[in-house]
Amino acid sequence: MSGQHEGRLDHVWAAEPRFTARTPRVVAARRLHRRRDREATGRFLAEGPQAVREALTAAGGVHELFGTDDALRRHDELVAAAVAAGVPVSPVTGDGLAALTETVAPQGVVAVCAQRHVPLAAALAGAPRLVAVLAGIRDPGNAGTVLRTADAAGAGAVVFAGDAVDPYNGKCVRATAGSLFHLDVVRDGDPAAVVAALRGAGLTVLAATGYGDTDLDDLADDGGLTRPTAWLFGSEAHGLPPELAAAADARVRVPLHGRAESLNLAAAAAVCLYASARALRNREPRR
Amino acid sequence: MSGQHEGRLDHVWAAEPRFTARTPRVVAARRLHRRRDREATGRFLAEGPQAVREALTAAGGVHELFGTDDALRRHDELVAAAVAAGVPVSPVTGDGLAALTETVAPQGVVAVCAQRHVPLAAALAGAPRLVAVLAGIRDPGNAGTVLRTADAAGAGAVVFAGDAVDPYNGKCVRATAGSLFHLDVVRDGDPAAVVAALRGAGLTVLAATGYGDTDLDDLADDGGLTRPTAWLFGSEAHGLPPELAAAADARVRVPLHGRAESLNLAAAAAVCLYASARALRNREPRR
Repeated sequence: MSGQHEGRLDHVWAAEPRFTARTPRVVAARRLHRRRDREATGRFLAEGPQAVREALTAAGGVHELFGTDDALRRHDELVAAAVAAGVPVSPVTGDGLAALTETVAPQGVVAVCAQRHVPLAAALAGAPRLVAVLAGIRDPGNAGTVLRTADAAGAGAVVFAGDAVDPYNGKCVRATAGSLFHLDVVRDGDPAAVVAALRGAGLTVLAATGYGDTDLDDLADDGGLTRPTAWLFGSEAHGLPPELAAAADARVRVPLHGRAESLNLAAAAAVCLYASARALRNREPRR
Repeated sequence: MSGQHEGRLDHVWAAEPRFTARTPRVVAARRLHRRRDREATGRFLAEGPQAVREALTAAGGVHELFGTDDALRRHDELVAAAVAAGVPVSPVTGDGLAALTETVAPQGVVAVCAQRHVPLAAALAGAPRLVAVLAGIRDPGNAGTVLRTADAAGAGAVVFAGDAVDPYNGKCVRATAGSLFHLDVVRDGDPAAVVAALRGAGLTVLAATGYGDTDLDDLADDGGLTRPTAWLFGSEAHGLPPELAAAADARVRVPLHGRAESLNLAAAAAVCLYASARALRNREPRR
């Protein structure tokens, strides 16, 4: 993953003073661990080389790249991308890095990124064939994992609806493994309005629920997954609110063949999204 | 979830002294949080009413049921099941419970369960149509989640192979959400021998790997999932060892439609196991 010309761009940053945990810009960036400060500034932190790389090529942009000497030398290609994008590169001490990261083994680089708020109407204008709606999902790891899976399944947008977690929460960002930067992330407070807008845009709206009256395999066999589709997923603890499930075109259950009482949210979402991906793919020539 | 006759069976336990964190039997049970003590005793802890319920009906058996007064009263049906199975019921104080549990909000009951070691040959004698092999998966949450998904997809056995996590690790047990008690759990140190035994029993062995040369959808379209199948899954950090992937009948990748670099382990396993479940189901009348 490291650049071929390790350290070639040292001159960009090596003469700068090293920022510490008390340097005002590090102190300010560190506050982005808190939702309140993320919302006030429209910024968030992406840590680790993979996320930083994606952030530097994404539409939203990056305000600043922090890294230890070692990491900046190792990831010369990130420094090059930052320079190309006009992003300041700031070397930090080990404790400066620790202040900016949440993981036990941070990989040396952190970017201050701009949140990119895509209104639902703008996301729908792109005519996505697959959309995932996270309705009130509070767990950041679950939300980020479903977003990552949605990206892999070819979704064009993920909607954080209702009382869902902040998509820019550090744990959520890490769980997306870079996918946060690949698709339209929409935040909308009112799940019922989201469903109405999705249907208005011509999408079939399917509620994923263990109590659904439609079996996923039957739906696939009957051709019910070949149209552009939005899947609604609820929290693992509370499921989908009944009125939201009722507003969907169908309530779909993943079949349980063994004696498990249920699937966890990430597994159920993977099965549903990939059932759609397969049905949508069968309508076009194989890549 | 509570019994219809809450507290009817108080007489079974109410006159007993309340065990505390210092009572020798609680001290001994608490040691089961450590792998070394689990292996030495062949016992493990299952916490929460759902897991305790499953444990009491499973083949392995339960050595003792601990619970707070409140929880034992609330879960009279568990007390009834324990009495029916000849399992001692021991009331514990709040700190006694805290010593036995690992979660922030324990739900009041913990069972000391017997590990049930099913040799691979015995599991294969049951002619399972679907088997999941966890090859060197170290993360207990991931391993437990895949086991739960395998149960839901109808697997008859899950094999913890190589340097995999202890299936009786507390976090793994909790992630299985009771499914640990539903299927044959096999532990086998040598993944290569596992693959040979699976193939010897007539199972098709498929290695799930992001670098596989066979596309999962193509395999399903070509009828490659209609025979009894064992899936090999490697750790998220290191994947499957190349020699193990090479020993499988095919190396299968879940197609990536978007820009995600990969799926996480639990999502990839869910997609693979459910592709098999659907193909196997299509060969028999719908339930």
